[in-house]
Amino acid sequence: MRIAQIAPVWERVPPRKYGGIEVVVFHLTEELIRRGHDVTLFATGDSITKARLISNYDTSPERIHLAQYNPMPDLIHIGKAFKHTEQFDIIHNHTGWIGTVLGSLIDKPVLDTLHWRFSEENIPFYEVYKDAVFYNSISFKQRESGPDLNYVGNVYNAIDTDSYQFSKDKGDYFIHISRICSDKGTDIAIDVARKAGVKLILAGKVDPGKDTLYYKEKIAPKLDGRQIIYIGEITEEEKRALFREARGFIFPLQWAEPFGLVMVEAMACGTPVIAFPFGSVPEIVDNGKTGFVVNNFEQMVEAVNNIECIDPFDCWKRAVEKFSINKMVDEYETLYEKIIKLKADKQMAKIEVHKVQVIPSLRISPASLNLSIKP
Amino acid sequence: MRIAQIAPVWERVPPRKYGGIEVVVFHLTEELIRRGHDVTLFATGDSITKARLISNYDTSPERIHLAQYNPMPDLIHIGKAFKHTEQFDIIHNHTGWIGTVLGSLIDKPVLDTLHWRFSEENIPFYEVYKDAVFYNSISFKQRESGPDLNYVGNVYNAIDTDSYQFSKDKGDYFIHISRICSDKGTDIAIDVARKAGVKLILAGKVDPGKDTLYYKEKIAPKLDGRQIIYIGEITEEEKRALFREARGFIFPLQWAEPFGLVMVEAMACGTPVIAFPFGSVPEIVDNGKTGFVVNNFEQMVEAVNNIECIDPFDCWKRAVEKFSINKMVDEYETLYEKIIKLKADKQMAKIEVHKVQVIPSLRISPASLNLSIKP
Repeated sequence: MRIAQIAPVWERVPPRKYGGIEVVVFHLTEELIRRGHDVTLFATGDSITKARLISNYDTSPERIHLAQYNPMPDLIHIGKAFKHTEQFDIIHNHTGWIGTVLGSLIDKPVLDTLHWRFSEENIPFYEVYKDAVFYNSISFKQRESGPDLNYVGNVYNAIDTDSYQFSKDKGDYFIHISRICSDKGTDIAIDVARKAGVKLILAGKVDPGKDTLYYKEKIAPKLDGRQIIYIGEITEEEKRALFREARGFIFPLQWAEPFGLVMVEAMACGTPVIAFPFGSVPEIVDNGKTGFVVNNFEQMVEAVNNIECIDPFDCWKRAVEKFSINKMVDEYETLYEKIIKLKADKQMAKIEVHKVQVIPSLRISPASLNLSIKP
Repeated sequence: MRIAQIAPVWERVPPRKYGGIEVVVFHLTEELIRRGHDVTLFATGDSITKARLISNYDTSPERIHLAQYNPMPDLIHIGKAFKHTEQFDIIHNHTGWIGTVLGSLIDKPVLDTLHWRFSEENIPFYEVYKDAVFYNSISFKQRESGPDLNYVGNVYNAIDTDSYQFSKDKGDYFIHISRICSDKGTDIAIDVARKAGVKLILAGKVDPGKDTLYYKEKIAPKLDGRQIIYIGEITEEEKRALFREARGFIFPLQWAEPFGLVMVEAMACGTPVIAFPFGSVPEIVDNGKTGFVVNNFEQMVEAVNNIECIDPFDCWKRAVEKFSINKMVDEYETLYEKIIKLKADKQMAKIEVHKVQVIPSLRISPASLNLSIKP
């Protein structure tokens, strides 16, 4: 297939540091190339890819005013990408709104992966653009808070599971890796560990400004350097090493994240996940098998005490079977084929209906012409 | 012609209070209808028009965060308008960037009137979209600070000159009507009047916040209620009455406004304009005939003293001949026809080039086929 991948312009592919969308676009693009597809990636010029790279920006544009959204770079980057659509069988948009509107104007099949949450701001938009393109959700839970879009699939995000090391031999600690903030429930993780009487290692960044007070008031007083230990921001390698030997990942997330890759990373190392049923959690964690999806604080403590019931191998198996690059690309490939066919059928229907409309005087009914008219 | 007018979504057509673009779109639309065209106006549902009105918003959306640009209403309003283009011969976009990008994707001829200034923010955009659509400037001066776009015309904005009352009998005062701020040179107008020893009436709003200090420090101390009089914000009717009997309009504008309708309003009442040569001023004011375009403070004082050299009738005549609705719509009509032809020629050229390309084995040259191939 001749495939266009349109990445956001605000970060390189793959990202230099953070950038969940750009990681997914990177893995998807490289694996499609490996499978022999003709892939064009629209992304910044410093992106690293085996695909044909088309860029209007050498590097990511600066966000001049952080609080002020400047639509110009998006209009340049995404607009120019859609100007090139003639040469593709399928266009995969990862940039959201502007790409959706442009996609609604062209004849080519467009798949739009929703990489974000529905919000008060964007729901009126999706109400109007329900059927504009073909949509893909990244979890079934994600769909619930938005309008009923023209969904053609639900492809979960993936990680390179091969690059994580599985271990069934665990250390003496539980882990909580995430940004240190109330959204991620860091203080709850500490309370759970204390109540269960287990060792907990906390790792992650404290955002200067907004989370400093939270850290100072809710976290720092509970650190003792023996049972509850905070080790600060860590590297990718350190993260993987910590996950590998952790008995479990305590993740008391407080909001409906559309997809939480970090849970898959834990499982890929054979580490069970303990979390509340917010957002995509119940779709990622197989309750009782690869961790525990619990409803309250007491249950979370109990889950920590029952962690030995979980077989690390089952965790690893779920990560690989449901959230590996291979699985994700298999599903996107199937989706691309499905959409190309759907679009072709639709266009065929349009042409046939038109045919009948222009010769009404002949009084030939669609039925007698044996035309299959689709709505 | 079947014409689509796409107005901004942020104000009704015509505007309830301020909204230069919406005034122009209103007059243009109504006059095109009067001339027998089939016009569709894409604007808010509370707009007042004889055209077919298509709206996605009943009224203008609220600007939730004034400092934060929310692209959703534009994407809904403009995106949906461009989805309807099949039925039109020409699409006239008054909304800027998003309309430009969408216009670049469709086969129909799109005219894009630039209703704003080039800026650091939008110049990179226009560099990329130079040839995306057909552009119209609203003054030749406007073009100078931006890239060399695919301009097909320069149609000045217009006012309903018939609705202004001409008078050659003037009162004893000069006038300065505008927002009271340093950009408009209110303090300079006062100094000029004092130096020339003439009476000056100031009218206009002081924006709370940013212009309060300017008013307090630079304007208030110079008001004496006899020679220099500030009468506050005024109604449309009051404005027209004041212009009608003013000896001259002192307008020491300090920046390059792409088009200044207020100068045309003065002239339509037979009132000469005195201004510096910024922006569109030299294109609007016929120096020595309908006012004075001066280079410094001393010259402005001199111009005030020489105001009797200007014949009010010449001012009125220029307003009607160059800046009336009739004149504007004549020019837009011509432009629409020109663009439709340009676009058709381009598409024809594309088809013909394609024809030759697909039969290379026949060795028929374009020349022998007598095809006119355009670049």
